[in-house]
Amino acid sequence: MAAKSERTRELVLQTALRHLRERGYEATTMRGIAAEAGVSTGNAYYYFARKDELVQELYRRLQQEHRTVAAPRLTPGAPLAENLRTVLHAGLEVMTPYHGLGTGLLTPASSAHRAVSPFSAASGAPRQQAISLMAETLTASRGTPGGALGNRLPQLLWLAYLGVTLHWALDTSPDQQRSRVLVDGLAPLLARTISLVRLPVGRRLSTDVIELMDRLAAPTAPDTTSPTEGRREP
Amino acid sequence: MAAKSERTRELVLQTALRHLRERGYEATTMRGIAAEAGVSTGNAYYYFARKDELVQELYRRLQQEHRTVAAPRLTPGAPLAENLRTVLHAGLEVMTPYHGLGTGLLTPASSAHRAVSPFSAASGAPRQQAISLMAETLTASRGTPGGALGNRLPQLLWLAYLGVTLHWALDTSPDQQRSRVLVDGLAPLLARTISLVRLPVGRRLSTDVIELMDRLAAPTAPDTTSPTEGRREP
Repeated sequence: MAAKSERTRELVLQTALRHLRERGYEATTMRGIAAEAGVSTGNAYYYFARKDELVQELYRRLQQEHRTVAAPRLTPGAPLAENLRTVLHAGLEVMTPYHGLGTGLLTPASSAHRAVSPFSAASGAPRQQAISLMAETLTASRGTPGGALGNRLPQLLWLAYLGVTLHWALDTSPDQQRSRVLVDGLAPLLARTISLVRLPVGRRLSTDVIELMDRLAAPTAPDTTSPTEGRREP
Repeated sequence: MAAKSERTRELVLQTALRHLRERGYEATTMRGIAAEAGVSTGNAYYYFARKDELVQELYRRLQQEHRTVAAPRLTPGAPLAENLRTVLHAGLEVMTPYHGLGTGLLTPASSAHRAVSPFSAASGAPRQQAISLMAETLTASRGTPGGALGNRLPQLLWLAYLGVTLHWALDTSPDQQRSRVLVDGLAPLLARTISLVRLPVGRRLSTDVIELMDRLAAPTAPDTTSPTEGRREP
């Protein structure tokens, strides 16, 4: 019974992913997915209560596939620029079938559904996996810094990867070649910027970056002294 | 007659902007806007053929307001960090009433409507205005670099501002305080990074950044030799 339920969920999901690829976010409906998967609409909703939960699951799958494709291609002891280029290209590769979704991938991040934004708590697991893949990339590469900066680099590289993803989602060049140009240029640029930490000027910048990351990660308490307090929604 | 037409367009637009602020992107409809503005739906469509054209107009207005608010606050001869902080905070300030839209602001950038993405040709005029505001900020500040990097800095700072905007759109902290923390930390960090260009290591990085920007700006010809050619949609 559990196995059957798992199979039904997978059937609904695979149908949904095909609809998202072929029709885009707006034209994909739970009703259409259910009809094609041969289950009742109620049954489809049992597995995915909202369309954006499907996109959340798509994030998860893409992240798993990204790691599966990228990890074996990392070259131990290679310069960071090379391994980073490999990982970023692998990311574009696994996303390619979903380019028609465009920033439809971002649609569920809109205000009503912030739970599925890449920064939300609900996205914690795939985000952690994405950050882990960046950590693996750093570990595989030679001469990358340790210490406080080393601890933060996986997250910083993940942010750079999000930037590449956003560029790719908006990329109208044939076969998104422009995004590949971006990756080819960005990987050595990031590696060289990271290597600055060996110089005093780079260490100072690195301290500033770490401080800012700490401040952004700190919990924001409801600001009871702020003059803007009254502006909050009831 | 031209004046009356202009007034009607403005009435439709102001009604639309209020609906976008109060109801969000999805719940705003041309029909609802027309009803409240007291014009026929056909008349409303005459001025704005699609909902995303309203968002395009919103970009334009926000950009104008950003300049109007920020320019008088720039301090001639102040450090770049200070003026940049001023400009970025002014950007958050003018966007604040539209926070409910969230990444609904990005929705029209989805694949079906790429014309209204901030990188599209149709967005050229507001984008150029935004880049000009960054140029003014640099000109007002002391000790900013000239030369090839100086020419590109307005565009690079605009990209940083887009990053702040994206952070703000996804920001769930009370009154988006986290985005203000980001601006307070990012402005001096960007200024210090830019000042690196005085050192040999910074000049080399700067050359790499300019080369990458040139490659990304170059027209992408349909790639007739690529093995992926056949993949393009018919």
